[in-house]
Amino acid sequence: MAIKLIGFAQSPTTRRVVLVLNELGIPYELESVTEIQTIKTEEFITKKHPFGKVPVLCDGDHVVNESRAICRYLVSKYQKDSKTVLYPDDVHKASLVEQYISYELSYFDPPLSKVLYQEIYAKRRGEPTDEAVVKQSLEELSKTLDIYEKILKDKDYLNGEYSLADLFHLPCAHIVYNATEHSDIFDSRPNVKRWLKNLRERDAYKKTYAE
Amino acid sequence: MAIKLIGFAQSPTTRRVVLVLNELGIPYELESVTEIQTIKTEEFITKKHPFGKVPVLCDGDHVVNESRAICRYLVSKYQKDSKTVLYPDDVHKASLVEQYISYELSYFDPPLSKVLYQEIYAKRRGEPTDEAVVKQSLEELSKTLDIYEKILKDKDYLNGEYSLADLFHLPCAHIVYNATEHSDIFDSRPNVKRWLKNLRERDAYKKTYAE
Ligand SMILES: N[C@@H](CCC(=O)N[C@@H](CS)C(=O)NCC(=O)O)C(=O)O
Ligand SMILES: N[C@@H](CCC(=O)N[C@@H](CS)C(=O)NCC(=O)O)C(=O)O
Repeated sequence: MAIKLIGFAQSPTTRRVVLVLNELGIPYELESVTEIQTIKTEEFITKKHPFGKVPVLCDGDHVVNESRAICRYLVSKYQKDSKTVLYPDDVHKASLVEQYISYELSYFDPPLSKVLYQEIYAKRRGEPTDEAVVKQSLEELSKTLDIYEKILKDKDYLNGEYSLADLFHLPCAHIVYNATEHSDIFDSRPNVKRWLKNLRERDAYKKTYAE
Repeated sequence: MAIKLIGFAQSPTTRRVVLVLNELGIPYELESVTEIQTIKTEEFITKKHPFGKVPVLCDGDHVVNESRAICRYLVSKYQKDSKTVLYPDDVHKASLVEQYISYELSYFDPPLSKVLYQEIYAKRRGEPTDEAVVKQSLEELSKTLDIYEKILKDKDYLNGEYSLADLFHLPCAHIVYNATEHSDIFDSRPNVKRWLKNLRERDAYKKTYAE
């Protein structure tokens, strides 16, 4: 049975999974959600996601939800059939990938998501943008990126070699470049700029965002 | 060389790692941080954690930081020597553990951390408690726990068998029971209450909180 991904096609969480599918060359079918009600039905909540959220992956009969959990599942099951390594076998290397995954979750995603929420999603909902939240979140993100700038010195990727940790940053960074006026927060830092350029030159990225 | 854990002995992030060390029966030495300045020195930032945070684990020469990354490292490297299984080998079972790990990170920790920050850490710093944040966060946590109540129906643990996903919830839940007046948010839900009781009856929990 084919792999089916249920999600809002353009959302960063769905794109995160699509990036992994494309990196590993896994064929899949996207079941695009267009109406929020679809994921709030009793049936969806019982069979797909108890919190009524997407993305959800159906691999034959096996259902997994939550973007990062889906990505890890795909890597555990299918990386061995691919030339691309997103997660190293070596336990010490893997621990550093985990460290960078945690930086994304703890110091990169929270301030950036607040900016994107205020400037894009709140706007779409007709809510006013809270400029104080935007300002404070950009300051917090700047501090994080100052540290990334040092981490990325003389490196192409966070852990030296490309990994799931880099990939996890990409969907929100993509939105900054393509739908905000804040790309300078990345591009004013040479190592961060070079890193994100490396990521956006990968075939899987181009394929994901051409879709 | 022995395993050394650097951290604030009583903080939930350090306790999270100690729980894993105790579950897996790994001998270690705790280097207790008492002054915040210790983790803001140039040397600490260069060699231990670029964000100047703890916990940090030193396993011989190998340094790993970030509580969840450290826990995963310990499991990957040392679970095979232990009778306790925190992370299943089976790729399908593991994907569900990942799903529950993501629920903790996405829907349990954020509102609960806000409550604990307001009621405990802000107070310690002499900042006023923002009652509106407490109220809204408790409401958000209640919604999450309503869903956990269904997930935990007829189950001892989130994924049926005990795993890292359950363990990740424990340090903050412990604080709710021991340092707030909100234990009813758990105990008013029979399945959640039973689950947390199961967790708090484990030897590793008792050992961790007796230390
Ligand atoms: N932690 C989840 C977040 C998923 C998420 O927030 N999905 C959004 C779409 S991008 C959603 O389903 N929103 C509907 C809702 O929350 O009601 C993940 O990483 O997959
Ligand atoms: N995401 C980190 C958070 C660690 C963290 O916030 N640690 C606190 C102590 S519990 C800390 O080091 N605070 C000092 C600071 O942020 O300046 C983890 O899970 O380890």
